[in-house]
Amino acid sequence: MTHYIGVDIGGTNIVCGLLDEQLELLGKVKKPTGAANGVDYVLDLIASMIDELLAGQGLSRADLGAVGMGNPGFIDPERGISLSSANLKWHNEPISDKLGGRLGGIPVFIDNDVRMYTYGEAARGAGRGFKHVMGVTLGTGIAAAMINDGQLYYGSGFLAGELGHVPLDGETALCGCGLRGCLETIASATGIARIARERLERGEPSVLAEWFPGEQRSAITAADISRAYDQGDALARDVLDFVGRNLAKGLAWAIALWSPDVIVIGGGAANAGERLFAPMREALEPLVLPMYRDRLVIKTAEMNDDAGVVGSAAFAKARAGA
Amino acid sequence: MTHYIGVDIGGTNIVCGLLDEQLELLGKVKKPTGAANGVDYVLDLIASMIDELLAGQGLSRADLGAVGMGNPGFIDPERGISLSSANLKWHNEPISDKLGGRLGGIPVFIDNDVRMYTYGEAARGAGRGFKHVMGVTLGTGIAAAMINDGQLYYGSGFLAGELGHVPLDGETALCGCGLRGCLETIASATGIARIARERLERGEPSVLAEWFPGEQRSAITAADISRAYDQGDALARDVLDFVGRNLAKGLAWAIALWSPDVIVIGGGAANAGERLFAPMREALEPLVLPMYRDRLVIKTAEMNDDAGVVGSAAFAKARAGA
Repeated sequence: MTHYIGVDIGGTNIVCGLLDEQLELLGKVKKPTGAANGVDYVLDLIASMIDELLAGQGLSRADLGAVGMGNPGFIDPERGISLSSANLKWHNEPISDKLGGRLGGIPVFIDNDVRMYTYGEAARGAGRGFKHVMGVTLGTGIAAAMINDGQLYYGSGFLAGELGHVPLDGETALCGCGLRGCLETIASATGIARIARERLERGEPSVLAEWFPGEQRSAITAADISRAYDQGDALARDVLDFVGRNLAKGLAWAIALWSPDVIVIGGGAANAGERLFAPMREALEPLVLPMYRDRLVIKTAEMNDDAGVVGSAAFAKARAGA
Repeated sequence: MTHYIGVDIGGTNIVCGLLDEQLELLGKVKKPTGAANGVDYVLDLIASMIDELLAGQGLSRADLGAVGMGNPGFIDPERGISLSSANLKWHNEPISDKLGGRLGGIPVFIDNDVRMYTYGEAARGAGRGFKHVMGVTLGTGIAAAMINDGQLYYGSGFLAGELGHVPLDGETALCGCGLRGCLETIASATGIARIARERLERGEPSVLAEWFPGEQRSAITAADISRAYDQGDALARDVLDFVGRNLAKGLAWAIALWSPDVIVIGGGAANAGERLFAPMREALEPLVLPMYRDRLVIKTAEMNDDAGVVGSAAFAKARAGA
């Protein structure tokens, strides 16, 4: 039986998974990325993680059909090149060739992480059974991907899906991308924490001011806002309401332009759940045509940490023509 | 040699064109739609227009490979059904079957008008030579379509591309779709005229107040605003500036989500040219990532009235597998 490997690489950790032909996850291993050691170190590490997983199941490289890998940053999936990754400091790295070479020529297919997450949720998670699947991740930033009939949507330069980088009217926070007021500065885990901190700095009352006095404020995360929300904190409620309403604006454009059957929302900030999604749904109602509202399902991701690994493996299996 | 027919049907007129195998337009005929007479009347009329075109070139129905048709409203191009057209008062009409039957079984392929316009501009007009072509029409309303590698993008229910129906922050004009503040209420020929009229009603000075005194104001069109602009009219300049800036907001989302290589802008309001596009380009600059700006070309449509006819014929040729 042919097996597949899915790799989910981030700035902090690498997760490798071994899957069987039905894309059932047989085992996983997680290690610190160590990106500062350079691309060769990271690819050697991934190759050793793959060998470790195979050995654990009594398998060898000969049992592998293909390896898939989800990467942060901009990817050329056709040529298997990491064009640019701020997190990994990779630029024009031929990852598919370099990793494939280390694995004795096993085909390696790469794409960006939000596409692989969406591929995983579409194949085995919340998007299963839907024909047009939109995936959104609300993490450090926001990104989106669209799958139609099993095919990822790419656009020119493989650059489609930058839902996080369109500025919102009246918003001025400087985004990591260089623009101002991008949706990502608001509707991301980072954005939620930033907005709460700024309001605390303006002296607004909140239980967060007790939990994080003075300089400790900088440690506030999106999860803390949810915790405060659950204690009835008005500031926390207001922040998640504001973020949900702005997220709805971005989704309204994506719905009108892409027409998904389902939107699967994942990433760290999605853990806020209905605290965030209830105001989002309310704001979305007058922003989208009834013909979309009537057909569209909005769900939270089901596979969490496994979506990237399973999606990468499923993508590799499809690309290998298996 | 196999020939093709392209039909562009609107609420006012039908244009039929006869094209050769290289999609060169050999002849065109235009007649009033007469939609009030019902769908059978309209389809009989189209069949007679096709016969007229064929006879004019000494051809017969046996010389036809396929017929394509661009329709207003919502279309199921797979089944050839006009799902809903407010202009034509058609609902769930199996147009491909009905017209094909009238033509002795020649295959008929239909889609909506903005997709056929975009197909035409991509095949033979301003989008020629680009891989990812986005078409926009600024007419009575706004619509958009996206072609990747020759393939139209549809989404769920064939509903993708409703660029005109996302509400803008702070805008409240009631849209024909039932929502409020849609981009279409501003950045369309209708929107331009409406905004100018509303400002005249508030007593703002303009040469338009002299040209259209009192009740005549209701006759103002987008073309009149351009005329006033050319006389240095401040109100006209301000209206087109406002509309261009709002158009940029919609395009910014389309660019980030679809990543086109080229945007081809057509429709009546596009005749305003740089009067509208200069402020649009200026507003777009801080709204899109440099990676898009660097690769994207924005052009006005080149085929005007022929894009729908040629696009429909080209679409029919491709769908017929020729």
